[in-house]
Amino acid sequence: MRSIDIILKKRNGGELSQAEIDFFVQGFTRGEIPDYQAAAWAMAVYFKGMSEAETVNLTMAMVRSGKQLDLSRITPVVADKHSTGGVGDKTTMVVAPLVAATGLPVGKMSGRGLGYFGGTVDKLETIPGFRANLSDHEFEEALAKVGLVITGQSPELAPADGKFYALRDVTGTVESLPLIASSVMSKKIAAGTNCIVLDVKYGKGAFMKSLADAVALAEAMVAIGRGVNRQIRAVLSSMEQPLGYAIGNALEVREAVETLQGRGPADLLELAFILGSQLLIMAGRAEDEAAARTQLRAVLDSGAAFAKYKAFVANQGGDTRVLDRPELLPQAHFIEELAAPHSGYLKTMDAEQIGIAAHSLGAGRKTKTEPIDPAVGLVLYRKVGDRVQAGEALLQIHAPNREAAELVKADLLTAYTFSQETVKPPALIDRII
Amino acid sequence: MRSIDIILKKRNGGELSQAEIDFFVQGFTRGEIPDYQAAAWAMAVYFKGMSEAETVNLTMAMVRSGKQLDLSRITPVVADKHSTGGVGDKTTMVVAPLVAATGLPVGKMSGRGLGYFGGTVDKLETIPGFRANLSDHEFEEALAKVGLVITGQSPELAPADGKFYALRDVTGTVESLPLIASSVMSKKIAAGTNCIVLDVKYGKGAFMKSLADAVALAEAMVAIGRGVNRQIRAVLSSMEQPLGYAIGNALEVREAVETLQGRGPADLLELAFILGSQLLIMAGRAEDEAAARTQLRAVLDSGAAFAKYKAFVANQGGDTRVLDRPELLPQAHFIEELAAPHSGYLKTMDAEQIGIAAHSLGAGRKTKTEPIDPAVGLVLYRKVGDRVQAGEALLQIHAPNREAAELVKADLLTAYTFSQETVKPPALIDRII
Repeated sequence: MRSIDIILKKRNGGELSQAEIDFFVQGFTRGEIPDYQAAAWAMAVYFKGMSEAETVNLTMAMVRSGKQLDLSRITPVVADKHSTGGVGDKTTMVVAPLVAATGLPVGKMSGRGLGYFGGTVDKLETIPGFRANLSDHEFEEALAKVGLVITGQSPELAPADGKFYALRDVTGTVESLPLIASSVMSKKIAAGTNCIVLDVKYGKGAFMKSLADAVALAEAMVAIGRGVNRQIRAVLSSMEQPLGYAIGNALEVREAVETLQGRGPADLLELAFILGSQLLIMAGRAEDEAAARTQLRAVLDSGAAFAKYKAFVANQGGDTRVLDRPELLPQAHFIEELAAPHSGYLKTMDAEQIGIAAHSLGAGRKTKTEPIDPAVGLVLYRKVGDRVQAGEALLQIHAPNREAAELVKADLLTAYTFSQETVKPPALIDRII
Repeated sequence: MRSIDIILKKRNGGELSQAEIDFFVQGFTRGEIPDYQAAAWAMAVYFKGMSEAETVNLTMAMVRSGKQLDLSRITPVVADKHSTGGVGDKTTMVVAPLVAATGLPVGKMSGRGLGYFGGTVDKLETIPGFRANLSDHEFEEALAKVGLVITGQSPELAPADGKFYALRDVTGTVESLPLIASSVMSKKIAAGTNCIVLDVKYGKGAFMKSLADAVALAEAMVAIGRGVNRQIRAVLSSMEQPLGYAIGNALEVREAVETLQGRGPADLLELAFILGSQLLIMAGRAEDEAAARTQLRAVLDSGAAFAKYKAFVANQGGDTRVLDRPELLPQAHFIEELAAPHSGYLKTMDAEQIGIAAHSLGAGRKTKTEPIDPAVGLVLYRKVGDRVQAGEALLQIHAPNREAAELVKADLLTAYTFSQETVKPPALIDRII
C-alpha cells in the first residue's frame, strides 16, 4: 500500500477502505507518512467528503492510535456531554452536576477553547487550585469516588487526532464535516463513555452558522457513535444570541453556580434540563422526558446538584469557598456599562460579534499557547425580545483597563438591532437527533 | 500576510493577488512556509483552479525565485521546443537540428523523463560521452558556437519549480492545469528563449488523455508566454498511437538519426516539419508554412541538419561514431518478435499500454533516482491502418532477458485491435494555437 495512492483515490472521489484509512492514520501517527502528504489528503477530504463507513473507519483508526479506557470496571454506564461550542456556553458546568446528582456518573474530557471562547477546562481553572490535568488513573478514581469528573483531554487517548488536528489547524482543513465528526468522536470513544449527548450549536455565534450544516454534523457524529454501539443523541441548539447572560471564564463559573443555586438564566437551565433528560433516558434511568425532568428538578431544588458540584471541585483540588462567595473569583480591574442607543424591542444580538468583543478583551486565545484572562468578559442585561429604553444599560463590560473597554464599545453596539414591534426570542432548540 | 489565509482564500475559490502568490512562492522556496502548507495549497489549487492572471503571476514568481538567463547578449532570437511527452516522442532530436541548420539558434533545457518514458536528456545520454549537465555558462557558449544546445534543466533557474514539483509528485497534485502550465513556462522563461513552440499531446499515450484537456493546457501555456511577451505557439498532436516506430532510449536515438538521414518514419518527420515551421515563422525567418517547409526540406536533403546534429553531439562530448554506426549504441541482450494474432487492418494500438510495456522492460523510471536501461524497448513494424497477416511479426521486443520479454507479451497483444475493413490512421495534429 502506498500513501500517494490513498491521496489520489480520495482526490478522485473514491471511497477508501478500512485498510487504507488505517494504513494512513497509523503511518501518519508514527511519523512514517509525512505531514505534507497528510495535509494534501486532508484537503482532498475537505473537497470530496467521506462516506459514513469511511468516517466510522477514520474515527476507529484514530481511537486505535492510542490507549482506550475501559470504565466498565468502575461502573457500567458513564454519561458524557459534548458541545460544539458557543458564546457563553457554560452548560457543562450545569448539566454535569445535575445528572451526576441523580446517580448517573458523568465523566468528561474536554478540550481547551480556541477561537472566541475559553473551553470548559479554561472556565473551571479560574477556580483557585482546580486541576484539569488528571492522569487517566486519576480520571477513573474521581469517577468512582465522586461520580463526576471533568478534565482536559488525555494525550494518551487518540493521539492521532491531536497530531492531525494540529496539522489541519495550519493547513486550512479544519472545516471538513467528516474530519470534525471523527475528531470529536474518536476522543469520546477512546475515553470509554457509553452514553453521550451532543449539543450541536447553529447560528451566528456557533462554529456551524447554518442549521443545515449543524444537522449534517450532528448526523455524522451520531452515525459514528451508533456505528460502534454507543448510546448517543444530538440536540440542535441555537447560538443566534449568547446563552445565559455571562460571557467570560470566571463570569461563566459564577453564572453556572447561580444556576445550580436556582437563580440562573432560564435559557441555560432549560438547555441543561433538555441535555440532562436525554442522558437519563439513554441510560435507562428515566422512562421519558417528563420523568427525567422531575429527577433533575428534584436534585436542583434539594441542593444535591450544587453539593455534587462542590464535591467535584473539591476532589480536583479547587477552592470551594469561591462557589459560595463568587466575589472571590478573579475580578476585572475595570467594569463599565454600555447604554442602549435606542428604545425598542431587542430584535437581534449577533453572538459572533459579541464573542469577538469578549475575545478582544482577553477572554479567548489567539494562539494555542497564549494565556487567557480569567476575569474579563461581558455580562448582558437584556436578551432578544426584551424591551429596552434608550440610555438604560444594555450590558456590563469587564475589561483589563479603560482603554480595552473603550475599544470594544463600537463593535458591541453594531451587534444589536432594535425593533418598534414586539419580538419573539429565537427557539432554544430546533430538534433532537 | 499569513500563509494560512492564502490557503483558505484559494480553498474558498478566491483569486489570489500577485503579492499573495509572490509571498507564498518565495516563502516556500526559502523554507519559511512549510511543505505541509504548500501541499494543502496545491490541493486547493487542484480543486479550485487559477485564473489566467494568477497563473501568469505564479509563473513569474517561480521565475523570480532564481537566476534568469539573458541570451540576447549572444543572439537576438533563440528558439525552444517543448513537448508534454508521449510514447516514442523523439521529435526534439529531429526538429532541433533541422531548425538550427537553417540558421535559427535553438537552446533547450529539458527535464528527465518520469513515468512511462525517458526524457530527451535520457535518450541523448545513451550516446557515449554525451554531457547533459552543462553549466549555464556552457549552455550559452554552446549556443554561440554551435547554434544548438540541449541540456538538463539548470538547478539555478526557477528553483521554486523544482522544489514545488518534487512536493506535487508525492502529494497527488501533479494533474493541475495551472500548476503544470506554470511549471513548464517558468523554466522556459527563466532560460531566456523567446521563440517557443509547444508540442501538446493528447490521447491514450499522453499526459492529457482528452483533446479538450490538452487544448486547455495549451491555451494556458500560450497565455502565460504571451503575457510576458514571448513568441509562442502550441501544436496539438495526437498520441493515440506511438510516434514513429521506435520506443526506448537508444532505439529512439537511432530512429532520430535515420530521420535526419532521410530514412525515418513519415509521421515523425511531418511533425518535425510542422513544429519547425512554426518556429521559423515566429522568428521571422519564413513568411508562411510553405516557405518554412522549403527551408527545412533543404537542410534535410543537403545533410546540413544531420551535420548540425553531429556538431551538437560532439560539442557536448558525445561520440559521433555511433551516429554513423548506430549498432554501436547500447544493444539489448535479448531481441524477439511478437506475431500478430489475427489478420486484418490494424484498428487501434493503445499507446499507453505500449508505453507501460516499454517501461516494464526498463526504458523508464519508477523513482527519480532509478537508472534507466538505455538499450531496451520496442520497435514497431506496423501502425494503425496497416494491413497485417496472422502470424507475421507485429513488433520487436528489446529486453534485458527472455523472461522480461515474455512478461510484456500478453499486455502488448491487448494493446492492439484489428478490423476487417480498411482503417484511416488518426490525424497527426488537431490544431495550432
